[in-house]
Amino acid sequence: MITINLIGTGNIAWHLANHFAKASGCKLKQIAGRSKDRLTDFGSLTQQLVTIKELRPATITIIAVSDKAIKDVASQLPYQDTLVVHTSGSMAMDVIPQHRKGVFYPLQSFSKNDHVDFTQIPICIEASNAEDLQLLQDLATLLSIKIHTIDSHQRKQAHLAAVFVNNFTNHCYTIAQELCKKEAIPFELLYALLKKTAQKAIDHSPSDVQTGPAKRNDIEVIKDHLEMLQEEDHKSIYKTLTASIIAHYGKKL
Amino acid sequence: MITINLIGTGNIAWHLANHFAKASGCKLKQIAGRSKDRLTDFGSLTQQLVTIKELRPATITIIAVSDKAIKDVASQLPYQDTLVVHTSGSMAMDVIPQHRKGVFYPLQSFSKNDHVDFTQIPICIEASNAEDLQLLQDLATLLSIKIHTIDSHQRKQAHLAAVFVNNFTNHCYTIAQELCKKEAIPFELLYALLKKTAQKAIDHSPSDVQTGPAKRNDIEVIKDHLEMLQEEDHKSIYKTLTASIIAHYGKKL
Repeated sequence: MITINLIGTGNIAWHLANHFAKASGCKLKQIAGRSKDRLTDFGSLTQQLVTIKELRPATITIIAVSDKAIKDVASQLPYQDTLVVHTSGSMAMDVIPQHRKGVFYPLQSFSKNDHVDFTQIPICIEASNAEDLQLLQDLATLLSIKIHTIDSHQRKQAHLAAVFVNNFTNHCYTIAQELCKKEAIPFELLYALLKKTAQKAIDHSPSDVQTGPAKRNDIEVIKDHLEMLQEEDHKSIYKTLTASIIAHYGKKL
Repeated sequence: MITINLIGTGNIAWHLANHFAKASGCKLKQIAGRSKDRLTDFGSLTQQLVTIKELRPATITIIAVSDKAIKDVASQLPYQDTLVVHTSGSMAMDVIPQHRKGVFYPLQSFSKNDHVDFTQIPICIEASNAEDLQLLQDLATLLSIKIHTIDSHQRKQAHLAAVFVNNFTNHCYTIAQELCKKEAIPFELLYALLKKTAQKAIDHSPSDVQTGPAKRNDIEVIKDHLEMLQEEDHKSIYKTLTASIIAHYGKKL
């Protein structure tokens, strides 16, 4: 039985704690966090809500805190010679000072109130030795069917790609919603297109299904659109992405 | 029974023809197109594949050709006093010279080989008089359960919003795929995130679920990412979108 200590009270910690508490094959031993208020939310998941200094050894200690705090939190751990991992996409494994270290990075964007089907979330694992990698593999198998062993360099690149797939895409949705609002068009009008765009990128290669005025190099429509956009940053985004699409597909002619 | 003449051999024409041919309550009478080769693909849908000059009156004539060709095609029609509509998101209704005119704009991105569930695709309609609007409503009802009456100005704005939701989002996916390829990471690693991002924008308001380094104004990670990006246009897109996200959420503080 793998025992787990979890540090953190944010969204990743929340979803991991909820899933570990239900999973068979592991036991959520202690949960530690700086914010006492947020820690109490975890009360139904373990009887031991503690401070970092009160933590006692577990098979794996998972540090699910902000990137900047990982190193500091790890160095406060009051025990040695157990596996310590973080859950960050962008931090190298070596930020953890302990000898036995690793990474357990679920590649998903978590919101606290959102339902999560963990079986479909890829978990990227890395460890400083083969036995600990196997331990993380065993732990990940309790949650997900999609487990990838990738190194810190690859994980950082995957995280950068995730910024494009999630953060930038979502901001494009936000702008589209604002544009709809301006002319009293229901944003729902775009739901079918939004879903289809995502599904097509999965069913095909996204570069094979690119459409639109930039792809066609349709100068008239592009000019029209730039005149319609009122916010300077919307104009900049339109210009920058359009130029990139034209360059991308122009190259292939 | 509504009879339909369809002009065009592109992706929209293809999907409309296939769905009208199956729908009860309408009859696909003639299909016209400049490209004889592409026109033959429509052979199983009507016995009358013709040139524009050979078209004979139908209840509704649907011009599903490129934006630039609509006006020219409409003015070649060898009959008068029937309803003539185009299927474009960005062209005003008035581009059609006929007295009885309208727009029948399915808001979706069509690829020829892609399966389409037309019932879920919003159809935006507009007509120059109330009777013809009703006619388009009746026709749209044969295909979809989502029918919106919007004017040319709103439709143009919806089309601009669609560029953000579809074209720009898809280009972000393409860049993400390239970033993955560079470090031998399978793009599949991002599928769960990609799908979740789309679903969250529908389940919540996209501005409520924005996450990432730009939202957190995490200068360290942003700097790191800009160093990792090698293509100049990827850098520009990253900078422009990041600046817009920071400005957007900064305002609300």
